[in-house]
Amino acid sequence: MKIDSVDFFYLAMPVVTTAGDGSQDALVVRVTAGGHVGWGECEAAPLPSIAAFVCPMSHGACRPVSATVLGETLSGPDDIKRMAATLALNSMDLLQAAHTWSGIEMALWDLLGHVRGEPAWKLLGYSKTHPKTPYASVLFGATPEETLLRAKEIRTKGFRAAKFGWAPYGETLEGDIAQVEAAREGLGPEGILLIDAGQIFAEDVEAAAKRLASLNANKVTWLEEPFGGHAYEAYGKLAAQSGAVKLAGGEAAHNRYMAQHLIDYGHVGYIQIDCGRIGGLWPAKQVADYAVKRGVTYVNHTFTSNLALSASLQPYAGIEASRICEYPTALSSLATELTSSRIAPNSNGEIEVPDAPGLGVKINPAALKTYAVDVEIKVKGKTIFAPPVV
Amino acid sequence: MKIDSVDFFYLAMPVVTTAGDGSQDALVVRVTAGGHVGWGECEAAPLPSIAAFVCPMSHGACRPVSATVLGETLSGPDDIKRMAATLALNSMDLLQAAHTWSGIEMALWDLLGHVRGEPAWKLLGYSKTHPKTPYASVLFGATPEETLLRAKEIRTKGFRAAKFGWAPYGETLEGDIAQVEAAREGLGPEGILLIDAGQIFAEDVEAAAKRLASLNANKVTWLEEPFGGHAYEAYGKLAAQSGAVKLAGGEAAHNRYMAQHLIDYGHVGYIQIDCGRIGGLWPAKQVADYAVKRGVTYVNHTFTSNLALSASLQPYAGIEASRICEYPTALSSLATELTSSRIAPNSNGEIEVPDAPGLGVKINPAALKTYAVDVEIKVKGKTIFAPPVV
Repeated sequence: MKIDSVDFFYLAMPVVTTAGDGSQDALVVRVTAGGHVGWGECEAAPLPSIAAFVCPMSHGACRPVSATVLGETLSGPDDIKRMAATLALNSMDLLQAAHTWSGIEMALWDLLGHVRGEPAWKLLGYSKTHPKTPYASVLFGATPEETLLRAKEIRTKGFRAAKFGWAPYGETLEGDIAQVEAAREGLGPEGILLIDAGQIFAEDVEAAAKRLASLNANKVTWLEEPFGGHAYEAYGKLAAQSGAVKLAGGEAAHNRYMAQHLIDYGHVGYIQIDCGRIGGLWPAKQVADYAVKRGVTYVNHTFTSNLALSASLQPYAGIEASRICEYPTALSSLATELTSSRIAPNSNGEIEVPDAPGLGVKINPAALKTYAVDVEIKVKGKTIFAPPVV
Repeated sequence: MKIDSVDFFYLAMPVVTTAGDGSQDALVVRVTAGGHVGWGECEAAPLPSIAAFVCPMSHGACRPVSATVLGETLSGPDDIKRMAATLALNSMDLLQAAHTWSGIEMALWDLLGHVRGEPAWKLLGYSKTHPKTPYASVLFGATPEETLLRAKEIRTKGFRAAKFGWAPYGETLEGDIAQVEAAREGLGPEGILLIDAGQIFAEDVEAAAKRLASLNANKVTWLEEPFGGHAYEAYGKLAAQSGAVKLAGGEAAHNRYMAQHLIDYGHVGYIQIDCGRIGGLWPAKQVADYAVKRGVTYVNHTFTSNLALSASLQPYAGIEASRICEYPTALSSLATELTSSRIAPNSNGEIEVPDAPGLGVKINPAALKTYAVDVEIKVKGKTIFAPPVV
């Protein structure tokens, strides 16, 4: 079959704030081919990602993403891999292309899964899945007291793992120690505690190292993104002195090489992949395989809808040793309403990867209308982008 | 002073082809502050780069580039560095931001240079400049015969160095050998010959290695971008067996880390930086300093206007050991007409970095009108981008 159309739905909450909440807007992708439909989601920055699809060509190595996708043959997984390889050459100089392609790639696996009646994880090569222990992913409270309450609430909800992240972490050493202690206290002594520094230390190893004692004292499993995503040397230096607490990172990887380098040169213990950025499911699966070889634990990264959550689980669905998964618990109404199906913990408190065709998640058309952002892009008097019909 | 405005001029040739010619369009940036004006140029993909400046915020770590620049204080170089650090956090999840910022950053140095009456290279810390031997940068001919003619023409024009690149290189081993022999023959035995593979071997070390014998036999100085910009392992493996011919790469680096990693892990002998992608002059200067420490030769990368050419020269203007520079010789009329000043070889056939305030290049306002692409971006019924007034 031929890829007939690729549509982008730019959705947003009525008010978007500076909070580190990635579910405040969304770029949902619908692909049609041979009468079938697939859905995916790009992360993040909807307008530049749309522009990377529709923009006029700059030259042979800077073509819009559309040039590599529209009208192409889609008969099986190899076609998706072929398109990715072509895109790497055709859109070499279009930086945003990786994010745009990520949502399309997801949608292609979803579509192919519907055609074949198979879940995406099976198309990726797994024969069975293993449930994951979800960690509730939340922001730190403004004060340790707020964080304590959040941690208690998470525990009450039945979560055995939680991640606290971003500001005010990194502002003062004393504050950071108090925040981590509060999180541990609220979660209880047995809970899996994860800390996300949100790149706040840039590449200042010394500043990050000052936090290690409190992280180890509070039995933190990983310290996530202490540094910028490319600061491999800083990661490596901190990893060498981090003790029991391991480093985690990789969410910004926009190709599989970046993730592999963070493993090889940054010596992270956990590699976190966002399928909405790395180029979709296939490069993520390649990273998962690579991580196994290197003794590193693969973890999904996701902070938006259940569509993105399902996509994020597929690449490591069949890896038993990768036991935990990110599971956003404080999503915007947009992200919640986007899908009519829900991925919820089972009676054992674990997340099971959907055993249904494609990504196994149903889109709620009403949400595509409710949260639609009206965008129009005109070039030389011609409209090259307008919101698609739901 | 405060940064009052940042304007983007999207320019293009009437017809844009799939040729590997980066001068077919341009994104020119004008910044005003305190009554002064500075100019810069982003590379490449104008529409996504504009979108990255004007787009609505997605969340705190995915803000438009405008949020970090407009209204900011610009009193000296430290303000430019400060804004770059803020941008890394504020636009962490906006992939295209690096390309957008690159043109702005250039314009800020240009503006600051005009205010202080000093060239950008002086503001970057150099006390004097050293002229560079330009290499004529052209595409391979469709046949070895065409390449031979191009090489002869370059020699006749007085160039002592030339780079041939892109398709059909990489298509067949025999064809590649014939192309390189033709280039050498046309350039004469003494000419500096450079070959640009345009990432055609992806990460296939074996395929690239088959070309080494002919590259060495024809005394090629460097083989540029045999692989994708992130394939450090492939670079490292090829470098280990490349003999006298060194590897070159780095043009896609969109931060200084990527360039440093290509040096440290990819073992390139030449690191090529495009100021229109890496985040402007300052990260490029940091790479130049790093290259000196590592015994690697810094080279500019540029394939557009004389504005971009001047910017590309500033970061290594004062490094005497870096003797050659890229010098595009087959620019589009748009790229040629964009500046009223020309950077041409001196009587010695060398390129001198402009010794004039800022980037030392005058913009030709007529070209901003002649080649303007009419673009309008509307969000929620409000125009957030329209072509600025020249």
